[in-house]
Amino acid sequence: MIKRFITFEGPEGAGKTTVMERTAAILREHGYDVLTTREPGGIDIAEQIREVILNPANTKMDARTEALLYAAARRQHLVEKVIPALDEGKIVLCDRFIDSSLAYQGYARGLGIGNVLEINNFAVLNLDPLMTFLLDIKPETGLERIQKNRSGEVNRLDMETLDFHKKVREGYFELVHCYNENNRFYVVNANKSIEDVVKEVSEELLDYFQIIKEFQSK
Amino acid sequence: MIKRFITFEGPEGAGKTTVMERTAAILREHGYDVLTTREPGGIDIAEQIREVILNPANTKMDARTEALLYAAARRQHLVEKVIPALDEGKIVLCDRFIDSSLAYQGYARGLGIGNVLEINNFAVLNLDPLMTFLLDIKPETGLERIQKNRSGEVNRLDMETLDFHKKVREGYFELVHCYNENNRFYVVNANKSIEDVVKEVSEELLDYFQIIKEFQSK
Repeated sequence: MIKRFITFEGPEGAGKTTVMERTAAILREHGYDVLTTREPGGIDIAEQIREVILNPANTKMDARTEALLYAAARRQHLVEKVIPALDEGKIVLCDRFIDSSLAYQGYARGLGIGNVLEINNFAVLNLDPLMTFLLDIKPETGLERIQKNRSGEVNRLDMETLDFHKKVREGYFELVHCYNENNRFYVVNANKSIEDVVKEVSEELLDYFQIIKEFQSK
Repeated sequence: MIKRFITFEGPEGAGKTTVMERTAAILREHGYDVLTTREPGGIDIAEQIREVILNPANTKMDARTEALLYAAARRQHLVEKVIPALDEGKIVLCDRFIDSSLAYQGYARGLGIGNVLEINNFAVLNLDPLMTFLLDIKPETGLERIQKNRSGEVNRLDMETLDFHKKVREGYFELVHCYNENNRFYVVNANKSIEDVVKEVSEELLDYFQIIKEFQSK
């Protein structure tokens, strides 16, 4: 059985969550059984790990400690939620997965993509996404969208954020360039309207699942 | 500067903690500045991670999640406690380190030594122990010593434990055989009295530190 595990990646403000949820709704209208999730996904152990990562008192958290904790939470979320759903034949759409760790921590934070990939391979074993939608957006546009949800002027931190966003974007393109096994990346221009992005993504997936169906019924 | 980082390994009941503390006392008598520690070593973030590992409610904890959490706690303990002490020129004696993960989780629990080593290499970078004392004890003797500290008869669980202890011992010897870079392992027959083991270990270390001293003063 082909595991229909689909991930959504991109910087903040690219619209991943909205696109994923609307795409799921369209797939369901076509009769598919779809689970949407994101780490830690309500899994108790993964939530506990997440609490350690996000605890504001943990200012001394080392970047490598953090990367290992993300990988640990990812493992548990997979084992308890993603893999059982895939085994039941469901389509699983996941908001962020390994590539986020690679782009953010491996590339933008400088730990090295290959190094972060190693600990994540330990975590996920052979469960690679069948397809990964990279929602690509100009860093300025992404930030603008985020700031609309807040309010107030651009400050020094936002400027740092812009540089960081640029690095994250570079990181993602490094992945598309060098870690695109089975041609799994599908890069979407997310500067367009959300409606257009949803249309593109859902049509691509409907086509793909149709092909899989035909292949499996042969 | 040579980092005088020394680890103590072996199954439960081998006497690691006692041997390490008494050895530290002897080294201090000879004027050495010694820190003894064990993970999580009172480091707040590492303690929080440890709590997740040991939380009795976490019955669904996957073995790989657990291994990643141990590596994360190890990283933080190193960064906050071990590395600063080594940088100050202290001798650091550590009760259990990477080899415990390799023998217990990699070998005895079957995750694979090489796999567990990879995530631990990510955690510790290039900080290999200068020397590792493996306190080797017959599994039966080790269990006997543990049970003296409890009371009651041998039960089914203890029998499982014996098999598991045998596997852990095999795991350690696999490490001595295949992961003995720089000849770092020193295997001590820990079936002898604690006094004899302390004597052997402390003499070996005093000799070794003397050689380092002479080398560095050249």
